[in-house]
Amino acid sequence: MSNTFGQTFRVTTFGESHGPAMGAVIDGCPAGLPLSPEDIRRELARDVPEPEIGTTRREPNEPEVLSGVYEGRTLGTPILILIRNVDVNSGDYLDRKNRPRPGHADLTWRLKYGHVDPRGGGRASGRECIARLAAGAVAKKLLALRDITVRSSVTELAGLPAGRPAELALAREEVKRIAGEGDSTGGTVTVTAEGVPAGLGRPVFGKLGARLGQALLSIGGVKALEFGAGRAHARMRGTESNDPIIREGREVRPSTNRAGGMLGGISTGLPLVVRLSVKPTPSIRAEQETVDFESGESARVSTTGRFDLNIAPRVAVVAEAMTAIVLADALLEDGFLPPVRVEGEGA
Amino acid sequence: MSNTFGQTFRVTTFGESHGPAMGAVIDGCPAGLPLSPEDIRRELARDVPEPEIGTTRREPNEPEVLSGVYEGRTLGTPILILIRNVDVNSGDYLDRKNRPRPGHADLTWRLKYGHVDPRGGGRASGRECIARLAAGAVAKKLLALRDITVRSSVTELAGLPAGRPAELALAREEVKRIAGEGDSTGGTVTVTAEGVPAGLGRPVFGKLGARLGQALLSIGGVKALEFGAGRAHARMRGTESNDPIIREGREVRPSTNRAGGMLGGISTGLPLVVRLSVKPTPSIRAEQETVDFESGESARVSTTGRFDLNIAPRVAVVAEAMTAIVLADALLEDGFLPPVRVEGEGA
Amino acid sequence: MSNTFGQTFRVTTFGESHGPAMGAVIDGCPAGLPLSPEDIRRELARDVPEPEIGTTRREPNEPEVLSGVYEGRTLGTPILILIRNVDVNSGDYLDRKNRPRPGHADLTWRLKYGHVDPRGGGRASGRECIARLAAGAVAKKLLALRDITVRSSVTELAGLPAGRPAELALAREEVKRIAGEGDSTGGTVTVTAEGVPAGLGRPVFGKLGARLGQALLSIGGVKALEFGAGRAHARMRGTESNDPIIREGREVRPSTNRAGGMLGGISTGLPLVVRLSVKPTPSIRAEQETVDFESGESARVSTTGRFDLNIAPRVAVVAEAMTAIVLADALLEDGFLPPVRVEGEGA
Amino acid sequence: MSNTFGQTFRVTTFGESHGPAMGAVIDGCPAGLPLSPEDIRRELARDVPEPEIGTTRREPNEPEVLSGVYEGRTLGTPILILIRNVDVNSGDYLDRKNRPRPGHADLTWRLKYGHVDPRGGGRASGRECIARLAAGAVAKKLLALRDITVRSSVTELAGLPAGRPAELALAREEVKRIAGEGDSTGGTVTVTAEGVPAGLGRPVFGKLGARLGQALLSIGGVKALEFGAGRAHARMRGTESNDPIIREGREVRPSTNRAGGMLGGISTGLPLVVRLSVKPTPSIRAEQETVDFESGESARVSTTGRFDLNIAPRVAVVAEAMTAIVLADALLEDGFLPPVRVEGEGA
Repeated sequence: MSNTFGQTFRVTTFGESHGPAMGAVIDGCPAGLPLSPEDIRRELARDVPEPEIGTTRREPNEPEVLSGVYEGRTLGTPILILIRNVDVNSGDYLDRKNRPRPGHADLTWRLKYGHVDPRGGGRASGRECIARLAAGAVAKKLLALRDITVRSSVTELAGLPAGRPAELALAREEVKRIAGEGDSTGGTVTVTAEGVPAGLGRPVFGKLGARLGQALLSIGGVKALEFGAGRAHARMRGTESNDPIIREGREVRPSTNRAGGMLGGISTGLPLVVRLSVKPTPSIRAEQETVDFESGESARVSTTGRFDLNIAPRVAVVAEAMTAIVLADALLEDGFLPPVRVEGEGA
Repeated sequence: MSNTFGQTFRVTTFGESHGPAMGAVIDGCPAGLPLSPEDIRRELARDVPEPEIGTTRREPNEPEVLSGVYEGRTLGTPILILIRNVDVNSGDYLDRKNRPRPGHADLTWRLKYGHVDPRGGGRASGRECIARLAAGAVAKKLLALRDITVRSSVTELAGLPAGRPAELALAREEVKRIAGEGDSTGGTVTVTAEGVPAGLGRPVFGKLGARLGQALLSIGGVKALEFGAGRAHARMRGTESNDPIIREGREVRPSTNRAGGMLGGISTGLPLVVRLSVKPTPSIRAEQETVDFESGESARVSTTGRFDLNIAPRVAVVAEAMTAIVLADALLEDGFLPPVRVEGEGA
Repeated sequence: MSNTFGQTFRVTTFGESHGPAMGAVIDGCPAGLPLSPEDIRRELARDVPEPEIGTTRREPNEPEVLSGVYEGRTLGTPILILIRNVDVNSGDYLDRKNRPRPGHADLTWRLKYGHVDPRGGGRASGRECIARLAAGAVAKKLLALRDITVRSSVTELAGLPAGRPAELALAREEVKRIAGEGDSTGGTVTVTAEGVPAGLGRPVFGKLGARLGQALLSIGGVKALEFGAGRAHARMRGTESNDPIIREGREVRPSTNRAGGMLGGISTGLPLVVRLSVKPTPSIRAEQETVDFESGESARVSTTGRFDLNIAPRVAVVAEAMTAIVLADALLEDGFLPPVRVEGEGA
Repeated sequence: MSNTFGQTFRVTTFGESHGPAMGAVIDGCPAGLPLSPEDIRRELARDVPEPEIGTTRREPNEPEVLSGVYEGRTLGTPILILIRNVDVNSGDYLDRKNRPRPGHADLTWRLKYGHVDPRGGGRASGRECIARLAAGAVAKKLLALRDITVRSSVTELAGLPAGRPAELALAREEVKRIAGEGDSTGGTVTVTAEGVPAGLGRPVFGKLGARLGQALLSIGGVKALEFGAGRAHARMRGTESNDPIIREGREVRPSTNRAGGMLGGISTGLPLVVRLSVKPTPSIRAEQETVDFESGESARVSTTGRFDLNIAPRVAVVAEAMTAIVLADALLEDGFLPPVRVEGEGA
């Protein structure tokens, strides 16, 4: 199950960072949904690395839709989206094949599988996420049928606020400055989903928060997750933490949103708000202490390949896609969308 | 799937807070595991509410093992553990049936299912967790075969440190003081698993952290989750965040544990460390703003039934059980334990 | 997953034949469905062994509904139905503990688990099916919302036709006559589902026939399964096998039903028709050749406990329940029934 | 779940008959398994249509392995196998777009999805099975590690025995003779798995027979399935049906195999034997009665495209692949193969 996510809208991803291709199969998408290559291309394009602070690997990310769509609409059959790896340059990796990078999955993959993909990263690479973006593009088309929008942003970068353009510019300078010292930085990502109807999610293990938890903590580099006011709840009083309930027109809903849009794992009708803490890129140019698996001796390793100086901007985009996938899955499961075929305007 | 957790060691829970019984069916436990009622009773006993700050509901929590065990050993068939609800007093709840409590699942359950269980809480009650403790008891017996131990503690309570006995005593006083004002408090829980072998967990969606995320964020009241240094990673540099890799005897492993025992979703061999932020009990005696579903008008609600003044101590125990369940599931899935029958000492 | 069936309407069964209790947890049943103990009792009562040819074990089969139902309606939470084993008499089994009966699961359970449940049969007993009847009772209540009925009958017994009352009387005599010789007999069971809407089922692995196949071949003693004209199709020509398509009022459907109600795994709107071949009860009084696991020597075994002379009548009832469960699952999955709550008359 | 099969060795297939490509993603295959394009090519080549009686569509069936394999060994990551559709000629189908063929899924797909894939067949096409062969090729490599072999053959064709070469030649003539009359024929397929260790399979819903049932009844055109002596069991006596148990060297096993290699859903160590009844190809040149969906009137339809005169030979090959997949899944689940990586000779 390791590479499949979802119960009803089921996404299976595949592909190694330096293999021939990445991609996703989406099973459970109803028939009749408009879906064009452009819909997918637009989402994939958001993974273009940030200028200066992202990796210098450049992928065209041209999606091939090889099944499940005919004349611009889904057939109700599995949708295969394939994205070729073009800008592959494994040479950088081969020389450090036996020296796992601290903070990276190199070590644990070797301990588990008896190998690392010597071409670099394998499935434990930021590149893996391109498949999630492809599936997220399909999920977003479903969400659009219910006027639900998901957005993400980097709200803190390298310890500096990054929510506004001017702040972001300063923070980017800080990322570059620290990278100039051979080091890396982390950040904070906020994801918001608006238009989510009240009543979405299932009790106990199917709570919306639990499913978002699995989805978002499966993204590499995410070390913490908070809903709504998050960690601050632990120091609040009940009267500060509880959102009062009011009537607004025909709807009964909380008047504030410290809960982050969920109560008991079920949506309240207010926006879902999730915040993620992203660790610094483990790949850095500074030398770090490691062990050489060939010699068995202590060694030093320095990353010379291409990598992001800060992965928070890429995590933001993937977190948005995963949130869309969780919502599409829950909407179908809970009957907010028809399971077999969608019809009418927009569909 | 809402009430089932796990792929290989599968736990399905059932029961409403004020219905006749709670319980769990565990499917996928190998044959031959020693399991006595006392093993289960001991774990259930840990849910005894904290003196003074816990609910005054008193349940004997006597487990009935009605299938899957014969002469003190598991049969490899589903294990049903049933726990009767004895101290049920629904009267308190009936009068507020139409007035959802702010911060509680009352509102969302009504919006979703068109009803709330008027007896109080239903599945969205702390009482639901007793079934998880029962399943956790079985999981812990499996973990013991690999010398893995899971522990939890309340490390902060009502905004005060609570890690040491003297601190805890002060913090409890603070909980009571604020409860005396009709209000409630939250806290922080830390779960640690020691002895976890390196190489546990699967890539991508099957990451150990993703599964722990789903498991722990499915516990009522948990608003944030952090692994290892958690949120602090976002402001670290790579050289501060990365754990150096060293050789220790025949093992290669990180020398520090800022990662919290996982890299790329796979265990490193160091302890797993997870921290949870628990919100204040939403049930408080102070009056709060709500809407009366019968009249459709704004109303006030005050909780008069029995409830915990602070739920962090109970969350800690359940988080420990869920962590044990995640580990048992992963150990079986990854071949660290035999899937059909266990043998030898301890087994 | 071994003890769970279904994707959306999920049934998990538990219990050993001579343990304290049998039962089922049903997860995924929408809220608002009327369900009384009498609804369940009525289905369980159908497992009363045939006079003279069934086992002499007599179970009251009184169901306890311990969760998921309140004031006669489902809550949308897991439904636990418990049935105590009362007429347990394990003594008969203990003396043949080490001598597996030919044709019975005794042998394979021992080879797999290193034990047999010495109390008799464990999960590989006809008794296991009582839990399926309980779940089938809930499924049938859902089917009633769509006016779908499932029926089963024994159409051949001991090699004689048994479809009509007079035939059945003769066939029963034959069963008894052969049992008098210490031997046993088999039979044929036909299950029919009427009112199934066209369009139910999913392509490829989710075909209605594939799901019925798993469900019905999971019943002990079933050695063959046929849909519609079944095996006879292999010797037909296309013009004989294909059902012509006609228009009837507003519906387009086949005019004959050699296909048994499905094309490409999706229902046509005509009745589903499945036929099962049931082997003779492996337990017989005549001595059979076996091996004694204690001595390791060849041995003889004769069954002296209580058992059915012919299990076809009990298989029929269980096959009906399993068909109802498959249909309830598919109806929910395909949107023919609402996933969260049902409303209105009958619901 | 409709396009995914298996719990541990999980196969997801995709592709429409006249779309750009077919294929499969295999998740859960351990690392270290030798797997070459030739291994897959060899299995795909077995789908080459029978001369004269198969379809005239000619596909090169060249597999592209786009993930999960590096330098001839599996990585433990998802294996994507892609097979392009080359000889696509949809024109034949477009003119009968609104006239569903009797006996074909045309009708039910239209009723369910509101469309048929006008290019012909979509997922309800024999072409769909090429993806299963690709996955079966991987499964067979795993089976080889345990010296398990799966074989299939057409044992009856057009009502004539076909087990021996001379018989097969005659039967083929009969198929062609009847095709000359514009009609089609069916047949019988037998699948045998040798070397299956005793103790494979799980009780109740995870019975080996139940899983084979789902797997084999998911193949288009299969209308009946029998294990071992199959339907004949219904008319046997217990003494005729039961296989005596003997000791052979260190193994205790049945001396005959009327059970078809399973007791209580668990393998006995004898060969698994399954027989399938395959209906005549629904596509025939003779005119058949149908309804035109555009006009709503009765109409006639005659199949003029390319199709198999008899599908039994192709069903045999797919049934073999599905049996291999079921066994690979069960072997991994039950610990007969290591879940994470295989090592040593052959692996």
